[in-house]
Amino acid sequence: MTVQPYKGLIPLAIIIRNAIIATMNPGRDVLNGDIRIEGSRITEIGQVQPVEGDQLIDAGGRIVAPGLIQSHTHLCQTLFRGLADDLELLDWLKLRIWPLEAAHDTESLYISALLGCAELIRGGTTAIIDMATVHHTTEVFRAASESGIRYLGGKCLMDDCEQKNLVEDREQALAESLDLMDRWHNSCQGRIRYAFCPRFAVSCSEPLLREVAVLAAKYGVAVHTHASENSNEIALVRRRHGMENIEFLENLGLCSESLIVAHCIHVNESEMRILASNRVNVAHCPSSNQKLASGIAMIPEMLARGINVGLGADGAPCNNRLCAFTEMRQAALIQKPRLGPSAMKAEEVLAMCTLGGARAMGMADQLGSLEVGKIADIIMVDNRQLHNQPMELSTVYSQMVYQLNALDVDMTMVDGQILYIDGHLKGLDRQSLISACQRSVKRIYHRAGLD
Amino acid sequence: MTVQPYKGLIPLAIIIRNAIIATMNPGRDVLNGDIRIEGSRITEIGQVQPVEGDQLIDAGGRIVAPGLIQSHTHLCQTLFRGLADDLELLDWLKLRIWPLEAAHDTESLYISALLGCAELIRGGTTAIIDMATVHHTTEVFRAASESGIRYLGGKCLMDDCEQKNLVEDREQALAESLDLMDRWHNSCQGRIRYAFCPRFAVSCSEPLLREVAVLAAKYGVAVHTHASENSNEIALVRRRHGMENIEFLENLGLCSESLIVAHCIHVNESEMRILASNRVNVAHCPSSNQKLASGIAMIPEMLARGINVGLGADGAPCNNRLCAFTEMRQAALIQKPRLGPSAMKAEEVLAMCTLGGARAMGMADQLGSLEVGKIADIIMVDNRQLHNQPMELSTVYSQMVYQLNALDVDMTMVDGQILYIDGHLKGLDRQSLISACQRSVKRIYHRAGLD
Repeated sequence: MTVQPYKGLIPLAIIIRNAIIATMNPGRDVLNGDIRIEGSRITEIGQVQPVEGDQLIDAGGRIVAPGLIQSHTHLCQTLFRGLADDLELLDWLKLRIWPLEAAHDTESLYISALLGCAELIRGGTTAIIDMATVHHTTEVFRAASESGIRYLGGKCLMDDCEQKNLVEDREQALAESLDLMDRWHNSCQGRIRYAFCPRFAVSCSEPLLREVAVLAAKYGVAVHTHASENSNEIALVRRRHGMENIEFLENLGLCSESLIVAHCIHVNESEMRILASNRVNVAHCPSSNQKLASGIAMIPEMLARGINVGLGADGAPCNNRLCAFTEMRQAALIQKPRLGPSAMKAEEVLAMCTLGGARAMGMADQLGSLEVGKIADIIMVDNRQLHNQPMELSTVYSQMVYQLNALDVDMTMVDGQILYIDGHLKGLDRQSLISACQRSVKRIYHRAGLD
Repeated sequence: MTVQPYKGLIPLAIIIRNAIIATMNPGRDVLNGDIRIEGSRITEIGQVQPVEGDQLIDAGGRIVAPGLIQSHTHLCQTLFRGLADDLELLDWLKLRIWPLEAAHDTESLYISALLGCAELIRGGTTAIIDMATVHHTTEVFRAASESGIRYLGGKCLMDDCEQKNLVEDREQALAESLDLMDRWHNSCQGRIRYAFCPRFAVSCSEPLLREVAVLAAKYGVAVHTHASENSNEIALVRRRHGMENIEFLENLGLCSESLIVAHCIHVNESEMRILASNRVNVAHCPSSNQKLASGIAMIPEMLARGINVGLGADGAPCNNRLCAFTEMRQAALIQKPRLGPSAMKAEEVLAMCTLGGARAMGMADQLGSLEVGKIADIIMVDNRQLHNQPMELSTVYSQMVYQLNALDVDMTMVDGQILYIDGHLKGLDRQSLISACQRSVKRIYHRAGLD
């Protein structure tokens, strides 16, 4: 890849030339050609004629694809990577994740989120649907805003939980959510958006969940939660509310196209009907679901019923990567022993991580494919390394899903801005960040009483 | 990492300094220190005092670990990467793999093997147990020998198969095997060793398999085969021979500590007893077993019965990576939904890919751990990238198995020789190799009638 920098102040346009373009448009065209980006938008695809003042990036035959979208992350947990291996979900939460989240201070939370954003951007993830923790949420927004990533998320709501320093009074928690929404929703030219984030049915009272449904509808913002991840969790919901998890969400008035539900592993036929008819978005987290022994979500069955599905790494401590390529590969592989080798083909998986994520964010008309008029969230991936050879007879989908990985990403662009190129993350002092991570993790580990 | 090159002809020793050493010794010591390598052997571990004439490599706090060993590969198939996605095992063989193997010429086979070796070495795999194809096997040995990788493998034997241009007369095939053994076994100071490689029970006659057992015992060489990968394959064996696959292998006299059997997915309790009591080595291929929809092998159950298990990527077209890190992560993750989150802990998985592989190769006393007197098959892995942060409170095992990947490998050493360092593969013109791959794959694709 060669970059020909524009010598003036602001280039008229950026032109990425000589690329293999996986458009993910309705015709699934894969083009050999160029893309022109003006401001934050794609204005031309095909054979593009540069004009004086354009910045030219020669892709040298590399793959150019829509930015990868992760539909479920926890930036607040990035600092806990490798600190909670080999535990069952409810133990994982109670013994490790909740104490560590409760131990966060403003600096550690900011650093955790910044590390997550940096890793995501470097690995070709341009947008995330995130859940922050209970306290200091503005620090997560600050990191997302500064990093340049596209972010939909919000403060984690918990008013019923044994981790006392994470439990809040309902009205106070909702008031803080509204303040955060006022401050951050649609900031950075719409790149940052707010979502109400009740953690899951087990840690939220029914009145809280009902109020979230009302407020989200009133303000037209998304709701991001977890459901049906773990059989103990489902048993608790059934005992408390006398119904299945997704039925309970529907009963609360939460099921709509503005709802993103992570996991949905143990759902029955009737729950799938609820998800489909209400156009609820499912965030599939294949690695996390394996690592926490939660199970294998019936994604092909959901897709066959018209349910929209996005992909996500979940938080670092249950993965331990934040790599969209790893999740794509997992999403394909885990279904095959159950449903046969042609289940979850590579093209479908890439669609989940682009178009599926865009729809889950409520931005299907803006994101998820490379088309004229859409927002320029774009990645360039190096297809010429040995582990992708020979490449001329294999599809770009096989390469993206089965062969390539986060470290093959050569450029990440969000909103027409280059955030990562050629080994450099814009505005980031990598060594300072790593030092800050070490200081912060030691501080909160100690504060959580784990050392 | 900084390398201080020795200015003379041959350094007295190489000293890797300032490393986090995952020794994998019986005490599982993880040391902060140095390793001295003299010739092909490790001569000192701990705080090593350099002398005049030593070459110094400063690891700068990186991880140093035993070279990763892949116990089942097909170098001959590397050129078929991405050409056989989404097919069931027997179709995958009959429609794609066998026609492509049959279409190999000497050049394409050499290039396929060289590409495989280069990818493996670059990704930290120092040794493989391989199965070549039927014809031109000497080209695979030539590539392995030139690349510097440690290789145990041989000509693929098939005397009963519908792919007529891969079927050979039994006596002729065995005579060629013996010729290859004479030429290559224990060549390159023992780095290259021969194994008889009957493909699987379904494509081999009973007399062939019985003769292999006799010859392998007579010459003291290994046998490498596939078994119990696929339910159709098992049904065929049952129909033809009236017994289970592993029972059949035992009946043939093949079950011994010199046998490496890839897959072993569908084995019953009695077959596990046969594997354990005969000290047979199982090569576990988690990605391949998922991608071909073959199933999930009961590895924790096998380990609990004392069966030795190694890990392997299998061939490129059923993976599509040849990455030991991917296989380690998969080996851990796939068991957890079935057996709980503490099944297949990271440390156990790293042991499988080092000590398990060493034992499968019949070299447990020489390889698989970093100990004084053992052979210097060593890798250095960069632990300082963002996706491995923060790292001070997580274990080296979590990092190696869950977080790091092939592209994090900074140095690969086999037999005390540095084969990869700092982006450079010794003696390899990367661009020429890639061009040769493209030419070769087009030629054999056409010859196989697939275009």
